Amino acid sequence: MDFQYSQEQQQLADAVGRLFEKSYDFEARKRIVGSVDGWSPDAWAAMAEMGLLMIPFAADDGGFGGGVTDLIATMEAIGAALVVEPFASTLLGGRLVANACSAAQREALLPGVIDGSTKLAFAHAERASRYALNQVETKAVKAAKGDGGWRLDGEKVVVLHAPMADRLIVSARTSGEATDAGGISLFVVDPKAAGVTTKTYRTVDNLRAADIAFAGATLPADALLGEPGAAFDAIDEAVDFATVLACCEAVGAMKFANEATLEYLKTRKQFGVPIGAFQALQHRMVDMTISAEQARSICLLACAKLDAAARGEIEAAERRRVVSAAKVKTADACRHVGQEAIQLHGGMGMTQEMKVAHTFKRLTMIAQQYGDVDHHLERFAASW
Amino acid sequence: MDFQYSQEQQQLADAVGRLFEKSYDFEARKRIVGSVDGWSPDAWAAMAEMGLLMIPFAADDGGFGGGVTDLIATMEAIGAALVVEPFASTLLGGRLVANACSAAQREALLPGVIDGSTKLAFAHAERASRYALNQVETKAVKAAKGDGGWRLDGEKVVVLHAPMADRLIVSARTSGEATDAGGISLFVVDPKAAGVTTKTYRTVDNLRAADIAFAGATLPADALLGEPGAAFDAIDEAVDFATVLACCEAVGAMKFANEATLEYLKTRKQFGVPIGAFQALQHRMVDMTISAEQARSICLLACAKLDAAARGEIEAAERRRVVSAAKVKTADACRHVGQEAIQLHGGMGMTQEMKVAHTFKRLTMIAQQYGDVDHHLERFAASW
Amino acid sequence: MDFQYSQEQQQLADAVGRLFEKSYDFEARKRIVGSVDGWSPDAWAAMAEMGLLMIPFAADDGGFGGGVTDLIATMEAIGAALVVEPFASTLLGGRLVANACSAAQREALLPGVIDGSTKLAFAHAERASRYALNQVETKAVKAAKGDGGWRLDGEKVVVLHAPMADRLIVSARTSGEATDAGGISLFVVDPKAAGVTTKTYRTVDNLRAADIAFAGATLPADALLGEPGAAFDAIDEAVDFATVLACCEAVGAMKFANEATLEYLKTRKQFGVPIGAFQALQHRMVDMTISAEQARSICLLACAKLDAAARGEIEAAERRRVVSAAKVKTADACRHVGQEAIQLHGGMGMTQEMKVAHTFKRLTMIAQQYGDVDHHLERFAASW
Amino acid sequence: MDFQYSQEQQQLADAVGRLFEKSYDFEARKRIVGSVDGWSPDAWAAMAEMGLLMIPFAADDGGFGGGVTDLIATMEAIGAALVVEPFASTLLGGRLVANACSAAQREALLPGVIDGSTKLAFAHAERASRYALNQVETKAVKAAKGDGGWRLDGEKVVVLHAPMADRLIVSARTSGEATDAGGISLFVVDPKAAGVTTKTYRTVDNLRAADIAFAGATLPADALLGEPGAAFDAIDEAVDFATVLACCEAVGAMKFANEATLEYLKTRKQFGVPIGAFQALQHRMVDMTISAEQARSICLLACAKLDAAARGEIEAAERRRVVSAAKVKTADACRHVGQEAIQLHGGMGMTQEMKVAHTFKRLTMIAQQYGDVDHHLERFAASW
Repeated sequence: MDFQYSQEQQQLADAVGRLFEKSYDFEARKRIVGSVDGWSPDAWAAMAEMGLLMIPFAADDGGFGGGVTDLIATMEAIGAALVVEPFASTLLGGRLVANACSAAQREALLPGVIDGSTKLAFAHAERASRYALNQVETKAVKAAKGDGGWRLDGEKVVVLHAPMADRLIVSARTSGEATDAGGISLFVVDPKAAGVTTKTYRTVDNLRAADIAFAGATLPADALLGEPGAAFDAIDEAVDFATVLACCEAVGAMKFANEATLEYLKTRKQFGVPIGAFQALQHRMVDMTISAEQARSICLLACAKLDAAARGEIEAAERRRVVSAAKVKTADACRHVGQEAIQLHGGMGMTQEMKVAHTFKRLTMIAQQYGDVDHHLERFAASW
Repeated sequence: MDFQYSQEQQQLADAVGRLFEKSYDFEARKRIVGSVDGWSPDAWAAMAEMGLLMIPFAADDGGFGGGVTDLIATMEAIGAALVVEPFASTLLGGRLVANACSAAQREALLPGVIDGSTKLAFAHAERASRYALNQVETKAVKAAKGDGGWRLDGEKVVVLHAPMADRLIVSARTSGEATDAGGISLFVVDPKAAGVTTKTYRTVDNLRAADIAFAGATLPADALLGEPGAAFDAIDEAVDFATVLACCEAVGAMKFANEATLEYLKTRKQFGVPIGAFQALQHRMVDMTISAEQARSICLLACAKLDAAARGEIEAAERRRVVSAAKVKTADACRHVGQEAIQLHGGMGMTQEMKVAHTFKRLTMIAQQYGDVDHHLERFAASW
Repeated sequence: MDFQYSQEQQQLADAVGRLFEKSYDFEARKRIVGSVDGWSPDAWAAMAEMGLLMIPFAADDGGFGGGVTDLIATMEAIGAALVVEPFASTLLGGRLVANACSAAQREALLPGVIDGSTKLAFAHAERASRYALNQVETKAVKAAKGDGGWRLDGEKVVVLHAPMADRLIVSARTSGEATDAGGISLFVVDPKAAGVTTKTYRTVDNLRAADIAFAGATLPADALLGEPGAAFDAIDEAVDFATVLACCEAVGAMKFANEATLEYLKTRKQFGVPIGAFQALQHRMVDMTISAEQARSICLLACAKLDAAARGEIEAAERRRVVSAAKVKTADACRHVGQEAIQLHGGMGMTQEMKVAHTFKRLTMIAQQYGDVDHHLERFAASW
Repeated sequence: MDFQYSQEQQQLADAVGRLFEKSYDFEARKRIVGSVDGWSPDAWAAMAEMGLLMIPFAADDGGFGGGVTDLIATMEAIGAALVVEPFASTLLGGRLVANACSAAQREALLPGVIDGSTKLAFAHAERASRYALNQVETKAVKAAKGDGGWRLDGEKVVVLHAPMADRLIVSARTSGEATDAGGISLFVVDPKAAGVTTKTYRTVDNLRAADIAFAGATLPADALLGEPGAAFDAIDEAVDFATVLACCEAVGAMKFANEATLEYLKTRKQFGVPIGAFQALQHRMVDMTISAEQARSICLLACAKLDAAARGEIEAAERRRVVSAAKVKTADACRHVGQEAIQLHGGMGMTQEMKVAHTFKRLTMIAQQYGDVDHHLERFAASW
């Protein structure tokens, strides 16, 4: 509630805000969402040009060397504008590469991430896995022909942004049982490769996603990212990273929802007085505001802890606990603020014509992205 | 929770269930929703043929003479199948006609309602009215040329099912101040008439709605339904009627959501055991079930009270209180069951491919249709 | 919400209401609660004289042959007046006797229950049992001297009304493992017998309770109620009976809380207007009222189902489900209404001088008596 | 969630913790609460000796010159130990003196506050005022005899700690209408003076309080604190100060409740396994923990803001908003944690023998002390 941006962070926040204000208003977004591919190359290029994609990568990898804390302003702006381009998905993919890979692989992959030419999606969840990161049944085995290549079989579901990804980062089991943390490996896969079938669709909040089947897909030897079977910790950290990004996006979306609702209450009149003059509605408006502020507060803490863990200053267990606590409370706030925003708009809140209705749907989705409340309560308990 | 259908009601329930099971499964619905007009003439014809549209009208008007109690099974089936055709809107329009009109007008309008040839929409809410039924600023004045006709000016918003309506029932003020209960009249209007402009769009749950502007629209003398300025009580009763229909639709939608979720929990496996074996998820599933049952219980009571009031056995104030109480608690259950259903489905619950995601959106909309929680708490207090 | 008393039930309701109004007002109750023994022989005698203790027992046993439905009015009046005498505990004990025993034992014990001379308490819960009815570690073994007597060892905790009980009904294991449903027996025990140590204290709501240790307590052969090892079903049914009694008591307590709060809001003035004129408070008051009505509705259903199960018309599993559903929802309402009642009273609600503060404490206790929400969700799931 | 004590603050926290651990365990507290006067001179003396009462007063007034931030550890320890002595009430009284008075009056009164010889209570709320600070109907008029003295008439209600106060700080209207912010003055009053009648009682959480009637009580000229009619801002600030103290006390009480519950879940066994192994209970335990942490986070922010406002760095309006937001969210957490703590203890949680039952009652009271949720939502809206 009382976090202050550094001067540099404030400048970035202002610049990103201006970018979306100018080129990503609700009408522009509607066109993008309604387009065949569901994303805008122009908007994506503008984000890359501004250097947003370089923020969290190490200077050695061509990045800005920032932490997740430096992404807060960008994610809040993305949330406020309901940006549908694969920003967080691409950073998540990049994080996996940065976490798991040798310098050579980072050099091969990260420049494209940073300049925007390689959009990524992380294909990890499976029908049986729900939110458990360790349940991986997709299998990768050494290819028969002995050139070090791999053969990939299995299915990944609800892979966000997969339809527009240039490359997929795919988790697969190279050893161990279906729920072992050990034995999980990461591969970089061309979604157009033979043996890869993508069934695309929309999510409730109109993002593009896909179920992806691998049926004997053949991968070259260097598709393996890092050491075989050792990817779990990298995944665990990168998903925590993506989780706090989603939380910050939610904070921005809630900020928009609250501002739009307050504006509506102030200007609409009923019985000749502004609707916001009715005490019961006013109290609900304040309550939403406090919920959003409190969610922001715990999200900022989670960002700080994730960065501290990345610097080795705290244990991964503490990072997990705080990220899970932040997700639990942000999900509560998403539901509270999202529902109230459309209800306080009266019937208007239910039309697709109002941006707030789309914000509601996005908030509903974030509430369960990377794990619903029970998943994170469970995970918190396990890190105790 | 313990309501028993009569044999006749049970037969109807079974027949309606079979109708939608056969011809309105999720794939069929997807096609209808995706079509240009957003409704299916075939489905509509089947509903009319089965006699569903005659149920609540008096035998003298060509109806079956039933109460809202006799519509429960149909509305539950509509909710379960997510039927988008204008069934409740048409009955609401017909109720207004039945409540307000002379025998001659009823004879002119109701046969078309009953045989399905006249789909109706009720154009009542305005930008300033929120959920207040008495705030009507649309004006109807006697036309200058002295033929007893009317001139209509104003705007109605979020008129559900208007894009497919053959006739609109429009409320307009013929006397009094903007928020007087007296002075409100009802008119039947051809949506294609000169001076009527319709801006159509979709609601969050993919129903079709419209904002309708009247700019000097000319109406014939017989467009006025009943006595001028005396329509408020008819509107109040008909909207209560529509409110309990929406509640019963929600009960059906919740029943589907619960069954689908239970099925999902029983069959999906994680760590080799059905997801439903996890205690926390199991408890949430039971809690949803109890919420839905309790909502059903209070909805049935509201149906009974509405019928009793229609027969003159209880006061309108008691009807209002019980309908508002039912709406408050049904809205709570809609939010609870809707949110839990998609969350218990895990990531799958967020794809447009799953019917339950659409049920969630429909439940969200019903939660505020005809008034959100604060509106109905206020109305209950006013009837004390 | 729409239950109508029969004429007979209404007369009883009126009579019980008058009894407590006359002799059990808040001042009288304060004296009783503050007395050494914490109950009033006069009040108890008056209840017995009115025949309240005979209601649920069979005519053959000297009772009135009524169902739990016939006890609703009495329990609601007890809840409204915050009666502390062991009415429900004595009926629970009597129910165990009626459920488990031979005619001879019923004849020995029930007349005293019915005429008020034998107050009972059910000593069942143990430190490890939480709310599970089948976890009994207290042991009863045949006494060495071969006269058919028993030796009792173990400890029972939080035995409500034990300090004033003339006889305890004690569950003990005569065979099987600690959590087997089979092997549990019931015994009638004189609390003053050798080997029985009672540690008395008050509960949060100022009722009297005790932890009771049995250290080689010697019981005569006829202390065993019914067949050895076969008491589980009798206990399960009797505790369901007591659970719905507690729910009905809660309904009465909520009725008082709502009336007292409404009265307070109507008469207290702030800024020169009644507090109840403030919209936010008014809405909270309506919400409490609807919650209480809805709780009453599901409690009445549970009463009807318990009686139907007792008559063999429905399965025990259905009884369990409905009783658990009623308990879950009543507990929600207890917390909602209890908290709101004291909060709407402002600072006054926090003084021991206001009856509503005691009602709040009683409601808090009922919310978890015979099992908290998770216990009953679990139990519902188990009966699916 | 991530506040770090300074070394000095940590030492104080440790010392206070040791003090209560040694001399204020649950048995000791039970004796104090059960004593005639309801407080312990020894415990009070120990707190004074440790210098706790000097913390927030300026060095010029003989204090330590600390902020409310320096009181966090003490208030948390008081909350954990359920200390009943009038620590916060005395500091509140002292704050009023410090805020409102000339140097001479501060010199006359504050040394006694700081050394513990003058326990204070703030007599402000009235029957009609609810939580509004500006509604004061108690009247002070210049005494007839012209010696500059005052005559006091009116009634104050639920004055916490009044029965043990050496002096009362009393608000009274010296000009203006009943709800004017202007015209309110503060007086120091000997509770034993003629014309002062005290009706003492206990609050729900067993603190001592009183209703105090002033019937022509005669006060000397120097009883007036500061300028006549100008006390509102001093009261507003001091009550915000007391509100954050109460919030910090709640944080300490929740910490105890969580630790006690976790301990209970870990050690109690059911079906042979620790109760805490049951997933549903485990999730509830984590949820309580996160709620308490989040409440602590917003309370710490409110402390920082109150200190910043006291230093003139931010506006009073911002202080008000943050204090009200903290109170709203702390009250939510109080109810959540308090209810869950006793419920997770099973039946044991309902006995007066368990400290956690008393913690529950204290949390319930703090939830509405200095204003319930609606009051603070309203106040937040007014400061927007």
